[in-house]
Amino acid sequence: MFTHKKELQFHAKPERPDPVYAKKLQEILGGQFGEISVAMQYLFQGWNTRGNEKYKDLIMDTGAEEIGHVEMIATMIARLLDKAAVKDQEEAAKDPVIGSIMGDMNPQHAIVNGLGAAPKDANGNPWNADYIVSSGNLLADMRANVNAESQGRLQVARLYEMTEDRGVREMLSFLLARDTMHQNQWIAAIRELEEKEGVVAPSTVPPEWEATEFSHQLINFSEGEESAQLDWMGKEAPDGKAKFEYASKPVAHAEKPKLEPAPPYVHDTPPHDQK
Amino acid sequence: MFTHKKELQFHAKPERPDPVYAKKLQEILGGQFGEISVAMQYLFQGWNTRGNEKYKDLIMDTGAEEIGHVEMIATMIARLLDKAAVKDQEEAAKDPVIGSIMGDMNPQHAIVNGLGAAPKDANGNPWNADYIVSSGNLLADMRANVNAESQGRLQVARLYEMTEDRGVREMLSFLLARDTMHQNQWIAAIRELEEKEGVVAPSTVPPEWEATEFSHQLINFSEGEESAQLDWMGKEAPDGKAKFEYASKPVAHAEKPKLEPAPPYVHDTPPHDQK
Amino acid sequence: MFTHKKELQFHAKPERPDPVYAKKLQEILGGQFGEISVAMQYLFQGWNTRGNEKYKDLIMDTGAEEIGHVEMIATMIARLLDKAAVKDQEEAAKDPVIGSIMGDMNPQHAIVNGLGAAPKDANGNPWNADYIVSSGNLLADMRANVNAESQGRLQVARLYEMTEDRGVREMLSFLLARDTMHQNQWIAAIRELEEKEGVVAPSTVPPEWEATEFSHQLINFSEGEESAQLDWMGKEAPDGKAKFEYASKPVAHAEKPKLEPAPPYVHDTPPHDQK
Amino acid sequence: MFTHKKELQFHAKPERPDPVYAKKLQEILGGQFGEISVAMQYLFQGWNTRGNEKYKDLIMDTGAEEIGHVEMIATMIARLLDKAAVKDQEEAAKDPVIGSIMGDMNPQHAIVNGLGAAPKDANGNPWNADYIVSSGNLLADMRANVNAESQGRLQVARLYEMTEDRGVREMLSFLLARDTMHQNQWIAAIRELEEKEGVVAPSTVPPEWEATEFSHQLINFSEGEESAQLDWMGKEAPDGKAKFEYASKPVAHAEKPKLEPAPPYVHDTPPHDQK
Amino acid sequence: MFTHKKELQFHAKPERPDPVYAKKLQEILGGQFGEISVAMQYLFQGWNTRGNEKYKDLIMDTGAEEIGHVEMIATMIARLLDKAAVKDQEEAAKDPVIGSIMGDMNPQHAIVNGLGAAPKDANGNPWNADYIVSSGNLLADMRANVNAESQGRLQVARLYEMTEDRGVREMLSFLLARDTMHQNQWIAAIRELEEKEGVVAPSTVPPEWEATEFSHQLINFSEGEESAQLDWMGKEAPDGKAKFEYASKPVAHAEKPKLEPAPPYVHDTPPHDQK
Amino acid sequence: MFTHKKELQFHAKPERPDPVYAKKLQEILGGQFGEISVAMQYLFQGWNTRGNEKYKDLIMDTGAEEIGHVEMIATMIARLLDKAAVKDQEEAAKDPVIGSIMGDMNPQHAIVNGLGAAPKDANGNPWNADYIVSSGNLLADMRANVNAESQGRLQVARLYEMTEDRGVREMLSFLLARDTMHQNQWIAAIRELEEKEGVVAPSTVPPEWEATEFSHQLINFSEGEESAQLDWMGKEAPDGKAKFEYASKPVAHAEKPKLEPAPPYVHDTPPHDQK
Repeated sequence: MFTHKKELQFHAKPERPDPVYAKKLQEILGGQFGEISVAMQYLFQGWNTRGNEKYKDLIMDTGAEEIGHVEMIATMIARLLDKAAVKDQEEAAKDPVIGSIMGDMNPQHAIVNGLGAAPKDANGNPWNADYIVSSGNLLADMRANVNAESQGRLQVARLYEMTEDRGVREMLSFLLARDTMHQNQWIAAIRELEEKEGVVAPSTVPPEWEATEFSHQLINFSEGEESAQLDWMGKEAPDGKAKFEYASKPVAHAEKPKLEPAPPYVHDTPPHDQK
Repeated sequence: MFTHKKELQFHAKPERPDPVYAKKLQEILGGQFGEISVAMQYLFQGWNTRGNEKYKDLIMDTGAEEIGHVEMIATMIARLLDKAAVKDQEEAAKDPVIGSIMGDMNPQHAIVNGLGAAPKDANGNPWNADYIVSSGNLLADMRANVNAESQGRLQVARLYEMTEDRGVREMLSFLLARDTMHQNQWIAAIRELEEKEGVVAPSTVPPEWEATEFSHQLINFSEGEESAQLDWMGKEAPDGKAKFEYASKPVAHAEKPKLEPAPPYVHDTPPHDQK
Repeated sequence: MFTHKKELQFHAKPERPDPVYAKKLQEILGGQFGEISVAMQYLFQGWNTRGNEKYKDLIMDTGAEEIGHVEMIATMIARLLDKAAVKDQEEAAKDPVIGSIMGDMNPQHAIVNGLGAAPKDANGNPWNADYIVSSGNLLADMRANVNAESQGRLQVARLYEMTEDRGVREMLSFLLARDTMHQNQWIAAIRELEEKEGVVAPSTVPPEWEATEFSHQLINFSEGEESAQLDWMGKEAPDGKAKFEYASKPVAHAEKPKLEPAPPYVHDTPPHDQK
Repeated sequence: MFTHKKELQFHAKPERPDPVYAKKLQEILGGQFGEISVAMQYLFQGWNTRGNEKYKDLIMDTGAEEIGHVEMIATMIARLLDKAAVKDQEEAAKDPVIGSIMGDMNPQHAIVNGLGAAPKDANGNPWNADYIVSSGNLLADMRANVNAESQGRLQVARLYEMTEDRGVREMLSFLLARDTMHQNQWIAAIRELEEKEGVVAPSTVPPEWEATEFSHQLINFSEGEESAQLDWMGKEAPDGKAKFEYASKPVAHAEKPKLEPAPPYVHDTPPHDQK
Repeated sequence: MFTHKKELQFHAKPERPDPVYAKKLQEILGGQFGEISVAMQYLFQGWNTRGNEKYKDLIMDTGAEEIGHVEMIATMIARLLDKAAVKDQEEAAKDPVIGSIMGDMNPQHAIVNGLGAAPKDANGNPWNADYIVSSGNLLADMRANVNAESQGRLQVARLYEMTEDRGVREMLSFLLARDTMHQNQWIAAIRELEEKEGVVAPSTVPPEWEATEFSHQLINFSEGEESAQLDWMGKEAPDGKAKFEYASKPVAHAEKPKLEPAPPYVHDTPPHDQK
Repeated sequence: MFTHKKELQFHAKPERPDPVYAKKLQEILGGQFGEISVAMQYLFQGWNTRGNEKYKDLIMDTGAEEIGHVEMIATMIARLLDKAAVKDQEEAAKDPVIGSIMGDMNPQHAIVNGLGAAPKDANGNPWNADYIVSSGNLLADMRANVNAESQGRLQVARLYEMTEDRGVREMLSFLLARDTMHQNQWIAAIRELEEKEGVVAPSTVPPEWEATEFSHQLINFSEGEESAQLDWMGKEAPDGKAKFEYASKPVAHAEKPKLEPAPPYVHDTPPHDQK
């Protein structure tokens, strides 16, 4: 059960409106690695956790916080859109500053959302649940989480470069910090889990299921051997089970496949053309 | 530039057709973490790599291999669909074994693809590019890669449980092994990069951009303090910059937001209703 | 800012697992009118509200509650999936009860989510933000809300018919009640707003913008005049500005359009084929 | 069965080309509440109507008309794109008026559609069937319809503000009028149905299915009691069954959920990590 | 402008309900090559035609007819769903015939659409505008049309195999015939246009834009030379400009690309990792 | 199995960066008819081919080549983005040339991809598998292929018009040539197959399945008889089975459909409203 407090977790007030920047900021609201993604990813992981109450709680702590981040960015976007001029473009274009800015705002911010934020990315693609991961396997999902926080923090840093507005930058400085924390915590979790389970997820696959002769071999599918020069090549692999080996020549272990002819009732290519 | 060899990298021949299993196997072909996803993710990362030829080559080696895995699974699916009976369902349902199987196959395998594989997941959702990550930041992307290989190997393990067919299992044993290798190699890469850069991605954010007082704090947004009992809580965080601290009570650092009234030309709620 | 309480708002415990029903129940979790949709719709409407603090609060009260409903249904689905058998289908099909049930579960519940809920609908389509409405106009959005609660409650009623499980039905009885409340409250809001503004949204369009001779006319585009027999036909329209009139014959008020030829630099049909 | 008349229902001729406005106008052609949406929504509702021939006819009258509106807007967009210059951007940018306009047109209008309209929205997202509603329940669907016409008319009003072109405005004045009519007719229908059925959809749910103690209660999930001050709070609810009551403190009626451990064959978190 | 006639163009009445077949039939209603696709494709092509009134008329004749086909199939699906039992699955599964059938129907047909058709495909994916083609180039679009009618007729043939219901087959026999006509007409159009323009679309590309030394060469990118044995290999190509030639060995005409290092403000891989 | 050669098939080096053009060029990388589409379409067709090794090889030759085209365009886009300025827009807008260009670049190129290419179209829509066709029927699929190459070459020609950069144009001249070849080869294949099978796909439908009285009739659904004047009207149809005939008046061959009332358990419109 969730309750809402009207005060924001952190400041979300720009120095002045900037509808073009509002369009860009949508990326970390409703993009692939925006705040909606991490909120939903953590909530679903938490709700689906079977056992391990400590990690379930950690995930829910973080998930609930992220809904508040969605709120902060949505509020910021609404303010960046304040009084955005929405009028005849050709007229506006006579003033290059106004013209350039007006043309570049997201037209749906005015037409669809009435100067409000939308759960969409910087190109206007709607957020969708394909962005998130909830597998039931804690180690695998912690990796999804550190991935999401890494990509997310990278995007915040790039957006920080794109504005001089002190109010916007203040909010982004908070998001950078929280993404630092979240990377730290998921990495700490991964280290603890790897210590117990080993590094290869899932750790429950019995060795006899696996063609282990292929488990530590880099195969040179892209001509040229630069990758053989990597420092860790030839050394023990992270799973501690063997050394990395380098296979210069890709080998085809199976024959050329030849499919059975199609039965007539599927109306594939007729027999005379199958020859 | 890519060239194709008709022999398969590994065997992809089931003992006998099984159209219901073909539907399930689609997940690791065209699902969020299927082989198309890793192939496309690695290829785009490789093409976009600026500098670091060793890692570029490693990524391209792996990307090119994965196209061959798409080929193996597509071939397996086509064979699992061999001679799938496609006829009146009610008639078939009189034999419960046939009826159950027929009903459960993916209808598009027959209607749309003529007993062939499709770039779709186990529920028939088409593959889309929102599944992949290519950010230009090597550490961040290596994390995306270890995430993808962890989720992917987990799904292969689950699919292994769902069949007794020795031919299918043989192919899956190869995929398990390659996913082991790929997890190993991306983890090795992450370790090398973290050693040089530090663990928080991107590592190029100057400290003065970040509200560092929030960079190591777990905030208890989900009532109950189980997460405070985690072994690593209170200890040094992976970035080595501070200890994890635990904040029992979430604090709102900003005021309740109040947005400006909408200008009349956007036809939001009229003034008398805004009060 | 949002905080989470681990206790559920209401019971979400089935009498016994039922993976096939779990698949169906996904509709009111992650479908077009599922709980994710109403939660996100209300939160975005609330965050974007400019003025009218009473309605903003009402919307936020309801939005925060809905996240808790997502949680209840996700929990119920995880329990319906408890110990779902996931094995060789043909083997299972020999027992028609098990075979039929196993075949009909959502394969991603096992392969992708490890027996957990997903933000998807009953056919496995991922939730997406195209399902929601946040326009900045309060009257228009209240109509979106009563629409969502009507469709949502209708789906809950249908799902109630599809199970005999007393635990599931208990949860659905709560959702039916809350959807009753939410329909009631949005209707009350609409009535209040219509009284102040009039019934046609947006109410701020000046009459001279509108070709008002077409504002009260039903045009008989589908041959046959059954619709002319509607009780309210010929009577005063809800906006009180005129009576409904019935136009038996559709009239074309404009000429047949003829587009300019394409300029050569777009490589449309070449001139000789444009004739 | 449908027949086409080449004359347009109303004028669709701009004073002069304006490719930037063409991009914006796409919203009411192929956006969430564009004309394709209402056309498809009404046609599917009509085709699926079981009984009630008067309403079926009303719905089909309106659905057939809306295809003609799609035609008008598509024609307008093609004309707004007439002779759109499509050339080297940097060259063009030297003239700020031309540069701004060229940069802001939808690039697919030139590259993909050869200066023609597309079934997409103002950001180029393709129209999809998730935008529409056809539930089989007449009252519920009438609410979907008044929602669609309210959002649609709001967008037309905003687009009217964004142009000074008299030809475009003439077409929009017609669309405003038809949306007025359609709001009026769906509201009249709702009133008639509510009078017969009651206001809560679907009206066929027996009271014993519903936890009616929760059917009239506003729960204060967003701290602060502004919503308690709404005029209608405490008064009889629209369904006439009880007064609205206000619950200041959200109550959790169920225990904290604890899921069963995952069976080993799904390879979720292994037992030692579940603790 | 479009008008509707309530009589159907052709019969759409099954002998008896069959909800499982209803699910499959959705493919030719709302799938990639279903009737919605051809209707929308032809209408947009017609509306965007610049000049050539004869072809514009042909396209509009066909587009308007296709809306009537959508109507026929939607009606058929509603009837196949008549009285579909929608109840507890486990109970039903005791009768293998009923159980198998119930489990295999599209759950959204009951939960979302109230036993009506939906604009979706056989796996429940919503129709979307990415399925259609309208390029402004008549020859190119005629090829899109013959493609659509070929895939569409193939799917109708496969669906014909999957039922014994005489009512369904009667409707399909009509659709097969109309798809024959439409293939014939688009092929006739292509032949006429190719005769005037030549076979390579668009025909307006000046030869000096094209690296013509690569315009007639098959390059053997897939090892093995079976394709060199094709009857037409070595003979004059359809464009009449040269003979087909066969290049046994793929040649790389450009160097290995090396991208510039990323500027620091995008926070890609930092300099020490770029080496 | 696929191997990669680091040298490009052809040059992909612009004279100078142009981030706005990079956005447009995305269309032929990740759009509906971009290189990813043809690569995936041919690979899936090849993998699913049952019999006919010559055509399978031809398809695989072409599919493998197309992955190399994806590579060329991705490389070109990364170079067009070299050192793209990514900073405060309002500041930049003071210089109209820079301002216009910066505003028009795809914001995700900087925020998400770190100045790299993405598998998306010119409006930022992610590539998805609904763009491709693989039906199992060779004649039908060859038509899909000639369609794809026609639309693709048309888009390349339009993009050629939009730049003066000699490096970009050089790459496009190669793509124009390869699209010429691919149109030629698929047309040659179609001609060979049509000669053996006849022109109507699939050719395996027995005549008694088809209501052949409707197989050669153009029905005048769009009022006005321009289409009757087409040169080929009245002449023998391409299938050689009859002459094209022209039906001036559309005829409804079936009665007005009336659906059965809905059973109460689906909670459609209640009985009193069904009347």
